[in-house]
Amino acid sequence: MEKGQLLYEGKAKRIYTTEEENIVWVEYKDDATAFNGEKKAQISGKGRLNNQITTLLFEKLAEAGIENHFVEKLSDTEQLVKKVKIIPLEVVVRNIIAGSLAKRLGNEEGTELKNAIVEFYYKNDALGDPIVNNDHIQYLEIATEAELQKIKQTALKVNDILDPFFAERNVILVDFKLEFGVTDKGELILADEISPDTCRLWDKATNQKLDKDIFRRDLGNLTDAYEEILKRLGGVTQCSK
Amino acid sequence: MEKGQLLYEGKAKRIYTTEEENIVWVEYKDDATAFNGEKKAQISGKGRLNNQITTLLFEKLAEAGIENHFVEKLSDTEQLVKKVKIIPLEVVVRNIIAGSLAKRLGNEEGTELKNAIVEFYYKNDALGDPIVNNDHIQYLEIATEAELQKIKQTALKVNDILDPFFAERNVILVDFKLEFGVTDKGELILADEISPDTCRLWDKATNQKLDKDIFRRDLGNLTDAYEEILKRLGGVTQCSK
Repeated sequence: MEKGQLLYEGKAKRIYTTEEENIVWVEYKDDATAFNGEKKAQISGKGRLNNQITTLLFEKLAEAGIENHFVEKLSDTEQLVKKVKIIPLEVVVRNIIAGSLAKRLGNEEGTELKNAIVEFYYKNDALGDPIVNNDHIQYLEIATEAELQKIKQTALKVNDILDPFFAERNVILVDFKLEFGVTDKGELILADEISPDTCRLWDKATNQKLDKDIFRRDLGNLTDAYEEILKRLGGVTQCSK
Repeated sequence: MEKGQLLYEGKAKRIYTTEEENIVWVEYKDDATAFNGEKKAQISGKGRLNNQITTLLFEKLAEAGIENHFVEKLSDTEQLVKKVKIIPLEVVVRNIIAGSLAKRLGNEEGTELKNAIVEFYYKNDALGDPIVNNDHIQYLEIATEAELQKIKQTALKVNDILDPFFAERNVILVDFKLEFGVTDKGELILADEISPDTCRLWDKATNQKLDKDIFRRDLGNLTDAYEEILKRLGGVTQCSK
């Protein structure tokens, strides 16, 4: 497979064409951003870690029957994925109250939820990714009611797979963000990435943060934490190479 | 019926006991507040107008089969209503984009919605009445999924009744906020008030605002607008007395 033209550059990834129309080439960048792009940095190694962690998690999900866009890991920082039209929704699943939910409901971070909470945010930087409900989504013609139901069900299934997968590795899956896309054939599948950039992951024993909150809140070395996640997931870390 | 002890004082109303356990006495105040109480004023006549307009609208809704708490108008500023435990949700129905929805979706105020949008806000002054979805509401144990469905259906039915009712009187029902409560017998019914304090109402010919946005945005004389609404609804206005 050959890397073609740059199709799109996002905050954390570059997407290129390939000679196959339905496959795109993803390059994970070392750029870190937070607060809708207000905070920015270059963090050497982040792209490599997220590419590897996402690969492991998408492979795990595929095994468990969750259709997703992942095709093949190419290098430390690159992977091939199915080309999809991304549905402009951030689908957030929460097991423990943290971040914006703590503010919304006035709860302490760390409060456990008896049932997972699913939230939809409209992916729109100019509007600051506002939270939306099903009626807003219908009005915006982002997804049909049936698609939304499938998205929510799939998101909860992903949680049912990843929550114990992380727990067995002494990591608490606090919350995570998913994105979905539609293939050329019209299939709605899981897309984007699942990494410490898009999840809140806390050490089970100490509640220490092992995710992008380290960058958001200036809590220490980001790549050390991401390396730790990769190690616990059984990936090949830089040190073990 | 006799007015008993003060049970509760809100931003716009005082609630008193009566000798009947299931009936309370409501007194509409002249206080105007906006932006979660940050902006305040006394507007002579507002209590009288809202009491009269709410009476007319609750009578109209009762005729059309919408169970609600209204019992009887006592005086210009007072009415009797069934005692309910208020469900802490602001249920907003929107026909035209305005206010916070314009900000949320980045649309111009005045954009017409093909289908009405319903939103739930958690009534909590300390949190600034945040928007919430069904999962948040389940977590907060504010209402069951069945109650929420009934609330949404009833809110849309109220819209189906009031939207044409206002239109026939040359008023556009842009959006409105409802509150629901549960009686001692466990019945879920419409409660609170429906007035220019809780609706956006625009003149059909000129789009002139005839509601509390006049106060929020300093657009002129509030009571003139509320008198105009009362007149168009067929109520007895101060001038016609």
